[in-house]
Formats: sequence, structure tokens, C-alpha cells
Amino acid sequence: MRFFSDNAASVCPEVMAALGRANSPDTAYDGDALSASLDGAFSDLFGTQVAALWVSSGTAANALALAAMVQSHQAVICHADAHIQADECGAPEFYTGGAKLMLASGVGAKLDPAGLEALAASVRNDVHQTQPAAVSITNATEYGLVYTPDEVAAIGEAAKRRGLGLHMDGARFANAVATLGCSPADLTWRAGVDALSFGFIKNGGMSAEALLFFRPELAQATRYRRKRAGHLLSKGRYLAAQLLAMLDGDLWLENARAANAAAQKLASAAPQRLAYPVEANEVFLNVTEDEAARLRALGFDFYDWGPGEIRLVTSWDQQGDDLDRLASAIAAL
Amino acid sequence: MRFFSDNAASVCPEVMAALGRANSPDTAYDGDALSASLDGAFSDLFGTQVAALWVSSGTAANALALAAMVQSHQAVICHADAHIQADECGAPEFYTGGAKLMLASGVGAKLDPAGLEALAASVRNDVHQTQPAAVSITNATEYGLVYTPDEVAAIGEAAKRRGLGLHMDGARFANAVATLGCSPADLTWRAGVDALSFGFIKNGGMSAEALLFFRPELAQATRYRRKRAGHLLSKGRYLAAQLLAMLDGDLWLENARAANAAAQKLASAAPQRLAYPVEANEVFLNVTEDEAARLRALGFDFYDWGPGEIRLVTSWDQQGDDLDRLASAIAAL
Amino acid sequence: MRFFSDNAASVCPEVMAALGRANSPDTAYDGDALSASLDGAFSDLFGTQVAALWVSSGTAANALALAAMVQSHQAVICHADAHIQADECGAPEFYTGGAKLMLASGVGAKLDPAGLEALAASVRNDVHQTQPAAVSITNATEYGLVYTPDEVAAIGEAAKRRGLGLHMDGARFANAVATLGCSPADLTWRAGVDALSFGFIKNGGMSAEALLFFRPELAQATRYRRKRAGHLLSKGRYLAAQLLAMLDGDLWLENARAANAAAQKLASAAPQRLAYPVEANEVFLNVTEDEAARLRALGFDFYDWGPGEIRLVTSWDQQGDDLDRLASAIAAL
Amino acid sequence: MRFFSDNAASVCPEVMAALGRANSPDTAYDGDALSASLDGAFSDLFGTQVAALWVSSGTAANALALAAMVQSHQAVICHADAHIQADECGAPEFYTGGAKLMLASGVGAKLDPAGLEALAASVRNDVHQTQPAAVSITNATEYGLVYTPDEVAAIGEAAKRRGLGLHMDGARFANAVATLGCSPADLTWRAGVDALSFGFIKNGGMSAEALLFFRPELAQATRYRRKRAGHLLSKGRYLAAQLLAMLDGDLWLENARAANAAAQKLASAAPQRLAYPVEANEVFLNVTEDEAARLRALGFDFYDWGPGEIRLVTSWDQQGDDLDRLASAIAAL
Repeated sequence: MRFFSDNAASVCPEVMAALGRANSPDTAYDGDALSASLDGAFSDLFGTQVAALWVSSGTAANALALAAMVQSHQAVICHADAHIQADECGAPEFYTGGAKLMLASGVGAKLDPAGLEALAASVRNDVHQTQPAAVSITNATEYGLVYTPDEVAAIGEAAKRRGLGLHMDGARFANAVATLGCSPADLTWRAGVDALSFGFIKNGGMSAEALLFFRPELAQATRYRRKRAGHLLSKGRYLAAQLLAMLDGDLWLENARAANAAAQKLASAAPQRLAYPVEANEVFLNVTEDEAARLRALGFDFYDWGPGEIRLVTSWDQQGDDLDRLASAIAAL
Repeated sequence: MRFFSDNAASVCPEVMAALGRANSPDTAYDGDALSASLDGAFSDLFGTQVAALWVSSGTAANALALAAMVQSHQAVICHADAHIQADECGAPEFYTGGAKLMLASGVGAKLDPAGLEALAASVRNDVHQTQPAAVSITNATEYGLVYTPDEVAAIGEAAKRRGLGLHMDGARFANAVATLGCSPADLTWRAGVDALSFGFIKNGGMSAEALLFFRPELAQATRYRRKRAGHLLSKGRYLAAQLLAMLDGDLWLENARAANAAAQKLASAAPQRLAYPVEANEVFLNVTEDEAARLRALGFDFYDWGPGEIRLVTSWDQQGDDLDRLASAIAAL
Repeated sequence: MRFFSDNAASVCPEVMAALGRANSPDTAYDGDALSASLDGAFSDLFGTQVAALWVSSGTAANALALAAMVQSHQAVICHADAHIQADECGAPEFYTGGAKLMLASGVGAKLDPAGLEALAASVRNDVHQTQPAAVSITNATEYGLVYTPDEVAAIGEAAKRRGLGLHMDGARFANAVATLGCSPADLTWRAGVDALSFGFIKNGGMSAEALLFFRPELAQATRYRRKRAGHLLSKGRYLAAQLLAMLDGDLWLENARAANAAAQKLASAAPQRLAYPVEANEVFLNVTEDEAARLRALGFDFYDWGPGEIRLVTSWDQQGDDLDRLASAIAAL
Repeated sequence: MRFFSDNAASVCPEVMAALGRANSPDTAYDGDALSASLDGAFSDLFGTQVAALWVSSGTAANALALAAMVQSHQAVICHADAHIQADECGAPEFYTGGAKLMLASGVGAKLDPAGLEALAASVRNDVHQTQPAAVSITNATEYGLVYTPDEVAAIGEAAKRRGLGLHMDGARFANAVATLGCSPADLTWRAGVDALSFGFIKNGGMSAEALLFFRPELAQATRYRRKRAGHLLSKGRYLAAQLLAMLDGDLWLENARAANAAAQKLASAAPQRLAYPVEANEVFLNVTEDEAARLRALGFDFYDWGPGEIRLVTSWDQQGDDLDRLASAIAAL
């Protein structure tokens, strides 16, 4: 019973069906009708003009977004636990041509405006130091916390004051929106976000993420960089189809709600063990090595997350039985 | 009726079915059982030990292959019409950190050993010039010609004499093998090829190409570079599934034969108009502007390829009726 | 007797004296008084506002200039024999993050507007091809030819029509101006040049070249890139001193005239052997292998330049006796 | 009276004289006799075979050294206050093609084996994280502390255990050797150092640093990278001459001893105010803002170094009168 990662989840049936429907000849790359409809579909969802590009991984989305805002002699401010720093093998450095990541601290991988300001202020304004050009936050964070629209807006204001772009890594953006019940607009461009990596793969998709620019002019050079990076897939319609299927009828929200609810069920089994509040679909528990071993002996798979801590991730397709059994097992520890 | 590109073709049913079968939770990235079986499957096909990595585009496969063989201060020798030079927006330069492409000429985008040798010999052996470190050839070429095993071997020998790696862009490798009736081994590692971009997407796949290293040690750093480039997809099993489905029962060969046969039908409609011999699934015809317009008026779509020349590409799924009509229309010009 | 290269020449006494005068403590990097006076000194010489940066090699000047105008997914148009292509081990690719050089032909390494236009027009305006963003010409060229102000202006207009920046590699700019008798302004910004690598080292300097931006805003990011490349020397005043000494009393022109006159003396010794008109300080002669050997036996050192051709380069400090002897020896062949 | 930086110091007369002696025509780049003698001169000094390259800045030396040991998808471990991290505008990232710097802490910018080990151990051994490939330490450190041979050896052993290269930024290597009284060999290759940036500019040179490889094979590709970076100066003999003049009669040690002695004089004026032990030529003092202002009012120039701290740097050419006055002023605060 897998609680390793939402990347381990299956693809939801609506997406599989959409792939079948898309399966006929059409123009290559992003010249097909489905790809052409993405700008409109995401503009509708966000209530503003959006430039939308499909890519096949969140890492590519993040790195392309940053490359649109940061030159090689500049820097990105992010949390030390951010995926772009800790889990992408230097993708931002690769795509930006060697920009630096400046690492902030903060509980649960959350950046706060004061920390951002302090970090930016620590840079001398001379040519000997790389100057920050963008901020990147993850929502929901790598520890399953969410930034509220107000929290994003506070960071957005701090960024704008210093002329920094703002990127949101939304690998679990759907989970954040599902928790907050806010509009996607309030959580992004209205709060100062310039580019969003909108994740679909962890949430029931197969191989398509959306890279959204709320300042559409940033998309122009990005289209070249996407090609240059090998991310302009030749049969792009199969990626567009996935995204459109997830937007249709707000499937993306529905799936995220299911994953979030599953996490809540686990959280409620042992609230006293929670290392962080559970605000999305990740549950971090304080357990001893022995307790972790007992859970594994029962057939549950998950990652150790530092000494005395484990990570459980729930998915849109989590089986109720598995969940119930894990919840009981946790409660019984 | 689309004769633009084999990228416009649909995905073959066996691949779609394989995606369905793969659709259950499994380990993320390339930790799943299907991905783990790729080395073995390709090693069987090629009769030698192969390191096989899935990637989602031919451009990524090519650029990763070259980055494994060429340092940033070195160069790649290729034909001026090679896809890596003319159609990848500088992907090799991006992945190698700025290596140079040295451009050879030759009819039909074919490189010959003498041209290769002449180009390599033109470089002064000093630090003022980038030194070639690899050769890249495309088989079948961008003009639909094939290199025979002997032709590849001659290039392989010329490369080895100078200590250059040899990469084959096999976006249409299946078409070449289908035409030649040779073994995949004879056309690659036995002829000196170190790395092969083995294309499946144009040939009925959806979003998976195979990057094969016949010197498996080259794969080691490539795994990091793949991640860093955003090409380590989180649900990799859906890529592995496509490749395995294409290998199964030699579907890759069967599809290629169908596309090749369709091209032969077009070629035989007007042999006197052929700009190049038709050895794979591309047909270049000498037609006047007026003739091209007449074909388009009949509903056929294709690219102009320089003045007085058009390109027709056939696919695994080319409809017989369309083909017959186009063949007749060409014959009637 | 060295006719290898003007890089082999000595440093002129005025520059040595200036180094001595500069030899006292002052602010590091480019914060000293001499460095601060460069913008003014070059603005005076060119009759317009110039941003002037010292660097320690022409390669650095060229690469920084191109990086200011060309993004990594774009391209530079230059001659196939341009120094930036043939003699800098890929420096433009390094500094631009992997931009492509598009190579034009033309007699004597000279680019012409039609060739430039044809090359630019050969690029499809889509994301699959790197799009040209700048043109680079060398004046005097690698074969000792000069572009007149009108010729530069014609290229400048062609560039502007396509939105391309224009860079001039002026490693031998002084020699060109000396030959043409024109104003530096007419040969550069008035003719559409955006950035000039103004060479001093071959012309009597020791280790300082000037990188000039006629669109001063291009200098802003360049200052960071210069530091990042290790070219912001910590005792910059010794570079500024060299440049100022060369500007003083038009020493740069005087030295260039001496080198040019020496070349003319060699040229007039055997006008029928000239492979190219001698318009600067380089002389290319058609001689047999045997003739070349006889010259060498007399103690003259020079490069072979392809079969049946040798290159002789004269310097500001060429000894009259050496010159006379070589002229006689050539005439006597 | 400048106590800003040893970069502000003048060039010592022996170096000026050497430039004069070198001033005659010779082969360009590094083909001259002086450049050719560097390997031998440094091999003699270090008692082992050394490959020695001149470069014109410490930043270039550092970045080239790291690029020889670290691939773009890897990482360098260094102190958070290391010059390569804090003062080179991302040069290591530029030269390595985007490698990451992993930052350790430690008093006075000193790295210790335990910190190094902890940092290296924090990296998961998978493709999602950049893997460290080298360690870089600065000796003397940015805070004027020295590593003893034993301390370097302990770091060298920790590095070797993990297969990491070891680079020493020796911008003030001379000062460290002068303080320690040890042999250059004991402080470098015998302690596991693979590459040394041996600084001469702060110590009386003008524009030449030495990049030394104790594993000479690392120099091979570096020669290309140096050219590619624009650091193969065309009149290299003027750089070689500086280095040779500094080695001659151990001038480098003599100058360093003078600078160190000057620092000791300042330190002894107010031992209770020292923020760090004074082990080289930098003095960090705890003073109030008011006290700093009083020193400045007396004509002394220096940097503030965080709240309540100032940095005084002494040079080989520090005037005794200035020193005495500053020492008195400090004592009188």
C-alpha cells in the first residue's frame, strides 16, 4: 500500500479517455487545435489573460519559468527546502545559465516576507555579488502547508518593492486551492504571481503540466527555450488533451479534494504526532524507528524524513480500505 | 489529407492499450518495473549490453547523447541539414554548455567519411579552435536516405581513428532498418555507433523515445543530466510502456514497413520527379508552384521544400484511400 | 625576424611609462580615477556618449559584446573566417550560454549586406531554429581588408531592418582608421555599430583592450558579466592607464600608421604575389613551398596560410632593417 | 591612508623591472620563453610536478580550477563566506556550466572536516540532487585565519574519502605560508590539495595570478577553457614575467611577511578589540560607529564589516608612518 508519493498514483479515467479522443492525426508540436485552446481555457479559469504552455514535468515548468525572469548573473530567492533547490539536480541553474539560488529558512518550507526582505537586503548592490531577480515559493509547500492569498500577496508586495519577479511552484497548487476554497486568481496574479507551474501529474494526469505566465510577454522567449530544452513534444496534442480533461468540470479540484480528505483522515488518527499541520495531501508524523518498522510490516510503504519522522502522501486515487487500515494502524501505535 | 509529417500521425492501438495496462500505482520516476526492464529489452534487440533511457522527445535524446560525449569547449561534426543543427533551436549547444557544431555537406543530408575526415583535418590542433569530439549522423537522413551498415562502419572507423564518439539520430531508425533488412546491431554498435536516439514517436508512439548507449558507462552522468533537464518524468512507467509495446512482436518494424511502403507507392507514381531516391518514408518531388497548388486544391497538405520542391511524409497509419488518391494526383500532374 | 603576428610586438614606451605613473595605491577594481575617466576619454574620441570597459583580451571584449546583444537561444551572423568563429575556442558560445554562429562567406573575410540578408532570410521564423540577433564584422578583417564607413553603414542598415545588433571586432580598428583616414565615429556608431571591441594590444599595448558600447544601456549587465567571467581585474588602473596612454596624442593612430606603412613596403616588393589587397598591416603572399623555405632560411618567421600562401604581419615596432631585408628578399624570389 | 584592501596596493619595483626586461618581441599567447618556464619554476618551489597557468585574476583562477574538477550537474562544497560564493558574481557557476555551491558554516570562514562531512552526508545519493565533486577552501581565509598543514590534511582526507577534489583559493597563500613558516608543499599537495589559485596580485603583482595543478592532467582541458574564457592573453609573457619576478629570491614571501607584520602592529594596538585572531594581513576590529568615524576623521580609509566591526587590510607596501599613526589612533580610542 503506497504512501510514497502522489507521483506513484495512477492516471484518472477522464484523462485516459481524453487521450483516446485525441488519437487522430493533427498538426505536430503545438500547432494542433487542443494546444491552441490552452490559452483560452486557462485565461477563463484565472479570469485574466494567460499564456499557457504544456511541458512534461514540473521541473521543466519551474526551470523555464525562472529562466524567463532571471539572467545568468542574477539570483533566485527560495526556501532551502524548495523542490527547485533540493530535488531538481540543478535544473534552475541549467536553464538560467548558472544563476544562483539564495536560500531562506522558515518552518515547513514556507518563506515569509521578512525573511525574503532580509535575504535580499543582505546582498551588496555591486557587481561582485549576484543580484536577486526573482522569488520562488511552493504552494502547497514541500511540507504540505499552504500560503493563503494574503500571505502570497505580502510576498508579492515585498518582491515588487525590490523589482523581483514572483514564481509559484504549484506542483500541488490544486491541493492548496482545494484547502483554501479561494479562487485561483486570488492565489496567483492578484497576489503578484508572474508565473505559475500548475501541476496536474501528481493529481491524476499522466505527463502534462501547465506553465502559466500572467505576464504573457514572458512566454515569448520561453517558447524558444522550451524547444531548445527538448520539451516541445512533437505530438503535443496528447499533453494538451490531459490538461483540458483536468480542467473540464473542475476535475482538478475534485481530485485534489479527494487527496486532501485522505490526508485529513490520516492526520486525525494521531493529531498529537503531526510534525506540521496537514493543509494539503502530505502528512508528516513523529514516529520512532520501531513504530515505522511496525507500519511497514503491515504493508505500508512511505519515506523516512529525517530521524523520527516519516512522510505519508495521499493521492486522488487512494483506496478507502488502505486508508482506513493505515489510519487504524497509526492510531494503534 | 496530411502528408506534412509523421509527427502528425496518430498513436497506434497497441501503444494505447499498453498505456491502459500500465495504469495502476507504481514507483515514481524510473523506479518502476517497466522502466527497469528497458535495459534488458533493448539489450536483447541489439544483442549486446545496452543502457536504455526513456525521454520524451528526440531533441532531448540527441542533446543528451551529445552531452555525454562532448565537452563545452569541443565540437560535433554533423551535416548542415542535420536535425540537430537545423531544427532543434540549439539544443545541442544548450546541453553541452556551448559546444560548436561543425557542418559538413553531402547530398541528401548524408555525411561521408571523406567529408568527415576533411572537416576534422581542417581544425588546427591548438587551444584556439574547438576540437571535434563526436560525429552525429541521421539514419534515415532528413531527406529520407539510408546509410547501410557498411556506410556507417566507414564513418565509424573514420571517427575512431580520430578518437571521436559516434552518435546516430535515429528518429527514423525503424524506417532505415525496415528498408535495409539488416539487424539493428549491424547498423549501430557493430559499425561503431556509441549512442543511438531510437525514435518511436513518429512511428506510432505517443511521447517516448529511447536513448541507447552501447557504451553503458556513458549513461551514468546522463541520468543526472536527464533529471536536470526536466526529462526524468515522474510517471515514467507510461513512457516505458510505450517503448515496450513497440518492441513487442517487432511492432516498430511493422509500422515502419507500412510507412515505407506508402512512400514507395507515391514514389512510383512519378519516378521522374524524385529529388532523392526514396529509401524510407519521405518523398521529395520536383513540382512547379502551379502543380503544388493543384495538389493542395485537391485537399493534400504538405510542406514546400525550397523552390520547385515539395516534401511528402508518410506514416504508419496512412490511409490507403488517401494514398491512392495522392498517387493518382501526382501521376496526373 | 618576426612577422608572425602583431601580438608578438613589444609594448610601446609611452604605455610602459604610463604604467610607471599609475604605480601608487588607488581604489581596487574599476573604482580608481583612471578607470573612471575612460567613458569621458572615449566619448570625446567618438563624439558621442560611450560606455567604456577595459578588459584584458580581445576575445573577452568580443564575447562580452555579443552576450550583451544575443540570448542563448539566438544566433550571431559572422563570416566563416571571423576570429570569433575560428580563433576563440568557442568564447561567444560560452559567454552567450550557447548561441549559434551563422557563417557567411565573402572574399577576404568580408561580409556584405546581400550575404547577410540571404543568411538571415534562410532562417524560418519559428521556434525550431535559432533566430539571429546580432551581426559581427571585423575591421580590419582577418585578411587585412577594411570596411569603409559606407560599407559598414550598408551592413548597419541591413542589420537594423531585421532588428539585429551590430558588433565590430576592432582588434585592428586602429589600422582600419589609419588607412581610411575617416573619423572613428563615421566608421562605427554613425554607421550603425552598437558595440566595438577596440584593440590596443596588437598596436603597442600590453594587456588592455577597450569594449565600447554606443548604446550605453548595454553596458549595465555587461559589468556583471565581466566580473563573473573573471575579467574585472583587481588592479584595474593598470589597464586604464594603458588605454589612456594610447589615446593621448593619438598614439594609437600613429602606431597603426607605422604598422600599415611597413605592410605597404612589403606589398610593393611583389604586388603580383598579393593574395589580397593590403589595406592594413597584414600581407598575404602567393609563394611556393620552396620560396617560403628560402625566406625562412634567411631568418624570417611567418605563418603558412593554406597551400601556396603565407601571412606576414607587421607591427608598430617593426625594425626598418628587418623590413628592408624582407622586402628585398621577396622581390628577389 | 588606505586600509581598504591589498588590491589597492602598488606594484612592487621588482615586478615593474621584470616587465621592462620582458619588453621585446616574442611568441604570442603562452608560446614565449617566460611562459614556458613556469611549470619548472613552480615545480621547483613545490617539489613536485606542477602544471602552472597564468591568468589575470583570482576569480578566473578559482573558476577554472573548479571547472576542472566539477561537472555542471555536480556541486562544490565551500564556506558561506568564501570569496567564490560571496564575491565573484557567480563565476564558479559560469565556468562549471551551472554547478551548485553547497555552503558550510564555521568561525572566520574556516571549513572543518566535520562540517564538510556533514554537508556531504546530507546529500541523497540519487539523481535528484547535485552530488558534490569538490571542496574549496581559502587559505588564508576571508577573515585572515590560516589553515595549518595538518588542518588542510584533515580536510584533504575527508575529501578523498568521498572522492572529492580539493581546491585551495590562495589569494593570500603567501600570507599563510609566511605566518606558518611551513613549506608550500606541506600546505598543498602533501595535504591533498589538487589545485591552487596562487595569488600574487594582492602581494605586489600587477595582473598575474598562477593557477597550479598538482594533478597535471587537470590542466589539459583547462588550457582550452582558459582560451574560451578570454583569459589566454595574447602577450602572455608580461604575465609570466610578473610571476617569475615574484618567485625570484622568494620575493613573494618577503612581501607577505611585510604585510603580515603590519597587521600584527595594528593588532597589538588593541588586542581586546580583535574579532578574530590576526594570522595574516587582515585585522577585524570591534569598534563603535562613533569610533569608526573618529578613525576616518583622521584620514584612515577602511570597510565597515557588519555592525560594530571594521576591516583593515595591510599590504606589502604599507608605509610605516601610516601604520604607526593608525596603531596609535586605535590604541587611543
